[in-house]
Amino acid sequence: MTRIHVVESVLKANDAVAAVNRRLLDSSGVLAVNIMSAPGSGKTTLLEKTIPRLAPEKAAVLVGDLQTTRDAERIASVAADTTQINTGTGCHLTATQVAEGLGRVSLANVAYVLIENVGNMVCPAGFDLGEHLRVALLSVAEGDDKVAKYPTLFQQADVVLLTKIDLLGVLDFDVQRVTEDLSRLQTRAPMLRISAKTGEGMDAWVDWLRQQRAQQRDRAAAPSA
Amino acid sequence: MTRIHVVESVLKANDAVAAVNRRLLDSSGVLAVNIMSAPGSGKTTLLEKTIPRLAPEKAAVLVGDLQTTRDAERIASVAADTTQINTGTGCHLTATQVAEGLGRVSLANVAYVLIENVGNMVCPAGFDLGEHLRVALLSVAEGDDKVAKYPTLFQQADVVLLTKIDLLGVLDFDVQRVTEDLSRLQTRAPMLRISAKTGEGMDAWVDWLRQQRAQQRDRAAAPSA
Repeated sequence: MTRIHVVESVLKANDAVAAVNRRLLDSSGVLAVNIMSAPGSGKTTLLEKTIPRLAPEKAAVLVGDLQTTRDAERIASVAADTTQINTGTGCHLTATQVAEGLGRVSLANVAYVLIENVGNMVCPAGFDLGEHLRVALLSVAEGDDKVAKYPTLFQQADVVLLTKIDLLGVLDFDVQRVTEDLSRLQTRAPMLRISAKTGEGMDAWVDWLRQQRAQQRDRAAAPSA
Repeated sequence: MTRIHVVESVLKANDAVAAVNRRLLDSSGVLAVNIMSAPGSGKTTLLEKTIPRLAPEKAAVLVGDLQTTRDAERIASVAADTTQINTGTGCHLTATQVAEGLGRVSLANVAYVLIENVGNMVCPAGFDLGEHLRVALLSVAEGDDKVAKYPTLFQQADVVLLTKIDLLGVLDFDVQRVTEDLSRLQTRAPMLRISAKTGEGMDAWVDWLRQQRAQQRDRAAAPSA
């Protein structure tokens, strides 16, 4: 009983902090995106290739990792602001860690806060960070059964990015199977096929991101009901 | 304070059950192997291709997944006994789940219990299941930075399998970097390069497994100190 109680408290505390994060981001007119996937699906490469395409709008990046600053170092050259959050043995980011990260970001200078979560298809999906949108990556090298096996991550996603599609020719990967598994989840999230390496599909992804930001601005400008 | 106390209790309870599992396996002369990696590194394919090569010795398999029985269905045709353990939202197997799984296995009929953990590079490494050996897989499609970024998994491994090496030609993957990162962890675990698809390296891996089983038998036969 105690154990269940504690887990609930942790989640409630997390959600309270997440709500504060989201209010801060909204009041600053900044769109926050929580990017989640297994290790090695291409989150960091995606950020490296996405941020320059968003110019003149700028992005701050929060990078979650157990240890090392390798991802942050890769992103630092393209982002307006990069903060590494080392989780130690923690398998996901928490809203409190993101709150600490936001404390170091000049929100007036950026249009986006892009959060690269810890590489993990399970735990990050359970924790609201205060983001506006969730992006789930699936690399074609991981196999076409992953949507069925890790449904929570994909069910909550606002967009699914099928990454490393330049490898489709050398792998046994059935895109149709992924599409069918996604439709079973009754998600309305679009699936975009991209290769950060060749650039294929990157325009559609960046357009989608820009569109989400425009919608956020429209919502903010609308008279409240 | 309460939260820390609870986590310790969970780990202590897990370790107690793991110790019982290990004693049971030892008394049955069965070698138990805990196979861990990110989602999509090739754990299931590895099992499908490994078990027939172990004949005439037989293997029982415990498969951990959030949901679906897809992996178990793939393995059922080659294993003497296959048990699916659905963890729901649980991000790793626990010793108690393995104890339940072992309850369905005729240990007298098998030489190996092969445990496919939940696809996750973080959480499984923290939980002893009662296994004798830990195998960590790293697919070359995941990138050559993963040993540095997820050191706990690799530090505890008794063998590291570099999988999908048939893709090395089409990826920017620096094997030397992985070797160096492993040597920094001061692990004595060998790294074996394999492709379950082409069969390359599979003999060395199966030989290693057989050798470990022979050593277990030698230890059991030795007069206790």
